[in-house]
Amino acid sequence: MPRYKLVVEYDGTPFVGWQKQDNGISVQAVLEEALRRFCGETVTVTAAGRTDAGVHALGQVVHFDLAKDWPATRVREALNYHLQPNPVAVRAAETAEPDFHARLNARRRSYLYRILNRRAPPALLRDRVWHVAKKLDAAAMHDAAQALVGRHDFSTFRASLCQAKSPVKTLDRLDVSVQGEEIHVAAQARSFLHHQVRNMVGTLKLVGEGKWARADVAKALAACDRGKGGPTAPPEGLYLVEVGY
Amino acid sequence: MPRYKLVVEYDGTPFVGWQKQDNGISVQAVLEEALRRFCGETVTVTAAGRTDAGVHALGQVVHFDLAKDWPATRVREALNYHLQPNPVAVRAAETAEPDFHARLNARRRSYLYRILNRRAPPALLRDRVWHVAKKLDAAAMHDAAQALVGRHDFSTFRASLCQAKSPVKTLDRLDVSVQGEEIHVAAQARSFLHHQVRNMVGTLKLVGEGKWARADVAKALAACDRGKGGPTAPPEGLYLVEVGY
Repeated sequence: MPRYKLVVEYDGTPFVGWQKQDNGISVQAVLEEALRRFCGETVTVTAAGRTDAGVHALGQVVHFDLAKDWPATRVREALNYHLQPNPVAVRAAETAEPDFHARLNARRRSYLYRILNRRAPPALLRDRVWHVAKKLDAAAMHDAAQALVGRHDFSTFRASLCQAKSPVKTLDRLDVSVQGEEIHVAAQARSFLHHQVRNMVGTLKLVGEGKWARADVAKALAACDRGKGGPTAPPEGLYLVEVGY
Repeated sequence: MPRYKLVVEYDGTPFVGWQKQDNGISVQAVLEEALRRFCGETVTVTAAGRTDAGVHALGQVVHFDLAKDWPATRVREALNYHLQPNPVAVRAAETAEPDFHARLNARRRSYLYRILNRRAPPALLRDRVWHVAKKLDAAAMHDAAQALVGRHDFSTFRASLCQAKSPVKTLDRLDVSVQGEEIHVAAQARSFLHHQVRNMVGTLKLVGEGKWARADVAKALAACDRGKGGPTAPPEGLYLVEVGY
């Protein structure tokens, strides 16, 4: 029973998120349905990260088993055919070791958060960025972000519904940079708490507006209390870029 | 009666094109309706380039007159409010000289054509790129493109419905470059014939596939016959980037 590993891109806008739910269509359901149409098998697909409704992926990684041994390129091409017209695409497919697990084996997750920082609302980037009309100080945001890098109890940036066993995580990188009219926040860690990136970005926005200083971010982190952090940035600016193994 | 100049961004996907038509909603109609809602005036808006259905703009330039003298920033903010939920945004607004004409005064138009050159179809870039699954030789495309730069009779790349008086145009720049998974074709001229950029891109794709050489492009140009050119590239890859005065 061969195991397959896919790298998947999707537009999160029309979905209730990665995970199957009763209240709408999920990326997981769309992928599993495409597999059923391709080979008739009812398969459960496991992802590296359970992205929320509206969150996008450039490089989500998933795994599943099939009864029949198909060439990986055939699986990729067939899925891309059967996934239409959903905005989900298989960028790469390969056969994996039988014990490969997309979530448990992941050693590094990279996220990108895109802020469109200009007066005019997005037209071409609608549902692809967080629109912040007020000018933000990206250099101050980057400096404050460094207060979050390292091994910490991230309870201040943790969603109340988070299922992680421990709030202690090691944040390897949190870089804020200006890219034309956009501000990009690049985050990297072995794993993140639920809403951690969006909660960190919402807090850094307070710094960009001049309402908070780096010391306020450090104090919020030390408080280990969600009530002391900034608001949650909206999902449409967030991209799961890459998962490393 | 003050004249206003706007820089406008739009997603061309839901529109029949820039120009008002009976068969659907145009960008022009949406802008004129937003102006009517803002100040109650019935206004005709003139654009630098009449983009086709599905073609996008990052920097379309338009002009119009209003009876009342509003501050330009007020016009910009009010239009961005009344344009919702259409994917059209006013990036900049200023008052212009009474004889300023967005189309007739334009001295330089810059277009970008985006090709997504990978096996997997676009998910996040759906309706934003031309998907070409077969690997293209961008260096050969760039070389062949140079055969089109300069002052020529571009009849080979002219749509049958083109209303230009003369097929002779001066193409200042036609650069093909690789940008990650994309191939970008950047075109610049004082003005273009109808479908000229898309017809040139469709021809350069034949070069990228190895079906045509640079000499074939030169020969097609010299033929001054649309029947000798390559196919028309689809509208969704094309962006009007900038208009210079």
